[in-house]
Amino acid sequence: MAHILTSTDLLDQTQALVGKHLAKVEEVYAAELSSDNEYVRDIYAHTSRFRGKRLRPILCLLSAAATGEVRPEHATIAAVIEMIHTATLVHDDVLDSADKRRHVATVNVRWNNETSVLYGDFLFTHSFHLCASTGSAEACRIIGRATNRVCEGELTQIRNRGNLNLSEQEYYSIIDGKTAELCAVSCELAARFSNASNDVVQNMEAYGRKLGQAFQIADDVLDIVGLEGEVGKTLGTDIEQGKLTLPLIRLLQQTEGETHQRVVHLLENPSAEHHRELAQLCRTTGTLEQSIVQAHELSKQACRHLDTIPDSPARQLLITIATLAIDRSC
Amino acid sequence: MAHILTSTDLLDQTQALVGKHLAKVEEVYAAELSSDNEYVRDIYAHTSRFRGKRLRPILCLLSAAATGEVRPEHATIAAVIEMIHTATLVHDDVLDSADKRRHVATVNVRWNNETSVLYGDFLFTHSFHLCASTGSAEACRIIGRATNRVCEGELTQIRNRGNLNLSEQEYYSIIDGKTAELCAVSCELAARFSNASNDVVQNMEAYGRKLGQAFQIADDVLDIVGLEGEVGKTLGTDIEQGKLTLPLIRLLQQTEGETHQRVVHLLENPSAEHHRELAQLCRTTGTLEQSIVQAHELSKQACRHLDTIPDSPARQLLITIATLAIDRSC
Repeated sequence: MAHILTSTDLLDQTQALVGKHLAKVEEVYAAELSSDNEYVRDIYAHTSRFRGKRLRPILCLLSAAATGEVRPEHATIAAVIEMIHTATLVHDDVLDSADKRRHVATVNVRWNNETSVLYGDFLFTHSFHLCASTGSAEACRIIGRATNRVCEGELTQIRNRGNLNLSEQEYYSIIDGKTAELCAVSCELAARFSNASNDVVQNMEAYGRKLGQAFQIADDVLDIVGLEGEVGKTLGTDIEQGKLTLPLIRLLQQTEGETHQRVVHLLENPSAEHHRELAQLCRTTGTLEQSIVQAHELSKQACRHLDTIPDSPARQLLITIATLAIDRSC
Repeated sequence: MAHILTSTDLLDQTQALVGKHLAKVEEVYAAELSSDNEYVRDIYAHTSRFRGKRLRPILCLLSAAATGEVRPEHATIAAVIEMIHTATLVHDDVLDSADKRRHVATVNVRWNNETSVLYGDFLFTHSFHLCASTGSAEACRIIGRATNRVCEGELTQIRNRGNLNLSEQEYYSIIDGKTAELCAVSCELAARFSNASNDVVQNMEAYGRKLGQAFQIADDVLDIVGLEGEVGKTLGTDIEQGKLTLPLIRLLQQTEGETHQRVVHLLENPSAEHHRELAQLCRTTGTLEQSIVQAHELSKQACRHLDTIPDSPARQLLITIATLAIDRSC
């Protein structure tokens, strides 16, 4: 997702509209994680280098502006969700044995796996502590439920590692938990704290969810065809870790005989060379293109949920994010 | 801590006093973690086999009874804290590469490290979700703050792995976070939900904290001299993992010359044989006995905080727990 929010126009417009609130999110985030412990401060400083896009805070603040007025609670909720997201990244890097995130060494490489596990826990618990500072037990419940689903999605993914029979339905259930959930809750809670109607809250939640699904598919496409120098993280980790993604599920479905056997062999014996061959097969069979089309479709569905709210600069930016986000991987 | 709550008298009395509430805690705990996901259900069933003592729920319910009336929120809070405790156990077993917990294979051994990390996260997030169901953002804030401290204690422990210069003060700061905090918050929140005065709330918190410190020292003594068959978990893990505990810190402080060098060598080259030699040295130099005395002193201090509340069967049981808990390791 490196390109969306470095797209100059979008960034400028977002800054103009919610820039001061984004600065507040950073302040709240840093204040919550400040510590007397030097070790904790070191890890914090290090991990802040691989926080880049602020996608979820931006979704939260723009949703707040699009459905009402941005209030202090919105900045808190945005920081909470960004912290949960960072916690999952830190733990993901242990699970994936990844060595780089946004061109920076992961916590597991810079320190060790134990530190990654505990620092991830530290981020999780601080996010809940921060959420409680809104004084809203309802927000805590919604954030709790969303993170439950994130974990369940990740568990389902781990369980299906190496499962070449993963269905599209199971794939969607995984990405719905591990990615779409936090985007959905960013937009949902923003609308709730704007005192929007139930109908608007539900539509904002649906916008975030579809957008998150579209993003994840685009990310999965990027894992197959992207260039490491451009995205700043290890590529081909999905294949390496035995995680089937949409282009690969369809590649398995749409090949027969020797080609199918070759695909199975390539997936079961991951290497840089096999990764290139798989990427090529996804291109020639069209499953890469199909996945991109699917991401576009979900992005369009996301935008349709914004039809229920009055037009505004914030609403326009939400539409732009949904559109640009997909193009980055094409 | 295997012996305390299997002490027949204590168990019978606790059952008579808060047995129906303990059953409710189990119900709430199970309901929160119920899942459509078969994999999650399997792990849940497995981990429930190494939940044994219910120390924190018992502390919570007895503190509730000792400071007022046991209410439904108390059962919820007890389940929340037990869930957080289980989450830390699941993650601890990854950090320690432990293979057994209460005679049962750990999650990392039965499945893998990735599953342990994610299932621990799942327990953390569910505990916060459950806490929010009390409708009290204040309870969420206090639980959040307590778990922040638990994580910070664990991080400090990991950072000091292999540090033979660990001071007693640093040791206390570690056990205060990783163990005492959850005992303290069990008693504190119990008193709060009983609408006790601030003075009582603070004293209950202090009772739990001192008790937790005493327990941890007793546990650390047990890790050195206990018998694996009796405690049902891998022994000598502290030494194996380069974690200095009170008897070892004092052993380093109170030896000189060749004996000191020998201690350093034994600690730096852990093996079953070296473990036995260290245990013997802790006995002969008296640092084991000193640690037991210190645990007794903390236990007495804990009980003194109960002077501020009227006598009752629940208060008597809290005193008994503080007393019996230490004897188990002598």
